[in-house]
Amino acid sequence: MLTIKIIVVDRTRAAFLEQGEAFYLKRLKRYARVEWESVRPARIRKGSPARIVLAEEGKAIARRIGDREYVVALDRGGKSRSSRELASRIERVSMSHPRLTFIIGGPLGLSETILERADEILSLSRLTLTHEMSRLFLLEQLYRSFTILRGEKYHK
Amino acid sequence: MLTIKIIVVDRTRAAFLEQGEAFYLKRLKRYARVEWESVRPARIRKGSPARIVLAEEGKAIARRIGDREYVVALDRGGKSRSSRELASRIERVSMSHPRLTFIIGGPLGLSETILERADEILSLSRLTLTHEMSRLFLLEQLYRSFTILRGEKYHK
Repeated sequence: MLTIKIIVVDRTRAAFLEQGEAFYLKRLKRYARVEWESVRPARIRKGSPARIVLAEEGKAIARRIGDREYVVALDRGGKSRSSRELASRIERVSMSHPRLTFIIGGPLGLSETILERADEILSLSRLTLTHEMSRLFLLEQLYRSFTILRGEKYHK
Repeated sequence: MLTIKIIVVDRTRAAFLEQGEAFYLKRLKRYARVEWESVRPARIRKGSPARIVLAEEGKAIARRIGDREYVVALDRGGKSRSSRELASRIERVSMSHPRLTFIIGGPLGLSETILERADEILSLSRLTLTHEMSRLFLLEQLYRSFTILRGEKYHK
């Protein structure tokens, strides 16, 4: 069975998004082992340059990535795919990699080091999303991918 | 003050999405008059062709559109924009149109007639979203647009 790890920065603060995550996580667990890892956000002092914050969070994220994981970093500037294309990609990659890791940064995004480590960069939208909304969006798409791959009805 | 009308099909069923909508609607109302109109979904009988369902819902939607409204239909195949581009577009259009109407279809999308009536077609993502998720996504982007236009901090 495929293991999907999702690395995020900070806990989810909006209650409705937390509920939405729980809803799709439960569904996703029918199809894959799911590991959810939350990294502590960098403490931002007034005037901390973004690159310092990103570097600090990047180090914490890097420690959670195993050697043989196929890493997909989420970034607005990454590759956009249709849901069907994303499903095919997951199917293809999972043939050679039993562990698939998705990384969603904090409010400032991801460090260059993490983007370079990633095997691919996925864009959910050209629109800027809050990092918390991206989590819900990604979970919903992963669930959707499996229903596409299994030819199952999408349950609303 | 700009009036933003949002026409959707059916009420929102997932409780967490309903809460999310309420959250962003409240914020959006700081910047615009907001009208939320929900059209009754077409009754689907076993084997109803999609075009019959869409035509029925399309008629109900068309009745809610005023003559002088600038209409933006949401469709995956429409134009994708960055948040900054969307904000500029809203600013530009609102100079000549005091009423801006966004339309989100039901599970099957929107009829050809509605897509033809629209002044523009906007894509939130190449990925397929549930129509309920699209509402939350759109509301968040509209709120974001106004914070961009006013040069305000985005409150998470």
